[in-house]
Amino acid sequence: MNDTFSNKLNELSQKVSERLPELVDDTNFLTAEVSKAAIYSLNAGGKRLRPVLMQQFYQMISGDDSLSMLDIFCTIELIHTFSLIHDDLPCMDNDDFRRGKPSCHKVFPEAIALLAGDQLNTLPFEIISDYALKGKISYQASVKLCNVLSRAVGVSGMIGGQVIDMMSEGKQISLETLNELQAKKTGALIAAACEMGCVLANADSEQIENARKYAQKLGLAFQIRDDILDVIGSFEELGKPIGSDKEQSKSTYVSIFGVEESNEICRKLTDEAVEILESFENNEFLKELTLSLLSRKN
Amino acid sequence: MNDTFSNKLNELSQKVSERLPELVDDTNFLTAEVSKAAIYSLNAGGKRLRPVLMQQFYQMISGDDSLSMLDIFCTIELIHTFSLIHDDLPCMDNDDFRRGKPSCHKVFPEAIALLAGDQLNTLPFEIISDYALKGKISYQASVKLCNVLSRAVGVSGMIGGQVIDMMSEGKQISLETLNELQAKKTGALIAAACEMGCVLANADSEQIENARKYAQKLGLAFQIRDDILDVIGSFEELGKPIGSDKEQSKSTYVSIFGVEESNEICRKLTDEAVEILESFENNEFLKELTLSLLSRKN
Repeated sequence: MNDTFSNKLNELSQKVSERLPELVDDTNFLTAEVSKAAIYSLNAGGKRLRPVLMQQFYQMISGDDSLSMLDIFCTIELIHTFSLIHDDLPCMDNDDFRRGKPSCHKVFPEAIALLAGDQLNTLPFEIISDYALKGKISYQASVKLCNVLSRAVGVSGMIGGQVIDMMSEGKQISLETLNELQAKKTGALIAAACEMGCVLANADSEQIENARKYAQKLGLAFQIRDDILDVIGSFEELGKPIGSDKEQSKSTYVSIFGVEESNEICRKLTDEAVEILESFENNEFLKELTLSLLSRKN
Repeated sequence: MNDTFSNKLNELSQKVSERLPELVDDTNFLTAEVSKAAIYSLNAGGKRLRPVLMQQFYQMISGDDSLSMLDIFCTIELIHTFSLIHDDLPCMDNDDFRRGKPSCHKVFPEAIALLAGDQLNTLPFEIISDYALKGKISYQASVKLCNVLSRAVGVSGMIGGQVIDMMSEGKQISLETLNELQAKKTGALIAAACEMGCVLANADSEQIENARKYAQKLGLAFQIRDDILDVIGSFEELGKPIGSDKEQSKSTYVSIFGVEESNEICRKLTDEAVEILESFENNEFLKELTLSLLSRKN
């Protein structure tokens, strides 16, 4: 990683991290507890990969490097955080740790964590419609953003992926099912991030198609890297117990192909993703980001 | 109740009931379980009050009595059903029965019930944006619907009401807090139903203001009637155990004012709500519906 890249990434992530808690209204004394829970999980950090992807597609196509669309970039992280909070609940994965900190429901009552997730599921649609009502984006763009995001969240997207994940627990699943699981559970939001950046920049259909192809490669590479890290990583680096996939008998790329071949597949997907970026101008930052995800430690 | 009114109400409710399960995609074998859970709860019936309210405001203002906006009417019932599924979960109210049938999480795994609720929280925004992308409503109307609905669901609306409800459990709360709880938990969605009907009909600001005032009266009257039924109703009529409010030491209008005075307040609010309807043409059906809610048994 060169310094310019890593400085820019840190700067972008930080802007997102600073803005996220501000988007959650906690001024009402009676309901402040649920907003505190949402803000707790939003502040737990993470790479802010999805907002950065949206920002990059927006900037590559529009040329606008201002952060006038920051709240829209943040919507995808609100959704991502909603999914993490619900995923960690006792009836789901029952995870006590997330990013090295106790999970939301370990710090707040379980019901408050549940409702914090619900709140973060709804809030993006308020933000996206507000932007149009305030004249910051067109009504048409707002409708498209709402459509891309809701489809990515719903049963044909992320929620569907969580269902497949749950239903597959302790079972041997086919590579085809594993691919569908990944494409929905992790891939759909990553693809939505890229496509929403395109919509904001008023991209043409070829650009949107390329963004989708890129996201598909990146999403799968990202998931495979996650699976590898679950085997070769450490608690300190990951902020959560390692080996949890094996313990839960989850089918992953690593359980099917082993670490070495999974690494190879990950590398190939990353190369293909970078290749697709060649069709965009000012792609240097995103190319570097894509490559850096291949070697990430958490 | 006269026959014309009750026939029309049944017909409307039935159209909504028939359409609701069709809106949930259960064609994907891998994710069908969560859609089945959503459909199970959608099929558990209920009065479909919120869609009927939306339809009535749309019809009174636009004069259109077709059901070309049926899917939009249904969105508010999808949200209502999401809230019921999550409300019944063990970490929330831990209710085993809903409308005389076992709750969603008693029939399906708890995680599937949770995800079914999540799915029903997101789906309305897909439907509302789809309607604009298919040219059935304007982009502007779609954005406004999205905004009204997301605000009604979020922390300043229904979810906020659930938080106040949870935080108040076993405590004496003031009438002011009780009113805010009700306005958010029950009132916000009822108000959104009425306002969304206005948006669909391209209503003017005075009509929207009157719809909101009406909804405020109706929402509170509806909640008070619920509280009264929890004391004087029966399991057979309500489809759930009675006396649960007292058992959980919940503050309600009945616990503060007693049954008789609560009845009186409910009647007064209903009269005021009917009075507001005088400013709309073709208000006969909605006036009758409003009055009928005062004497309902479930």
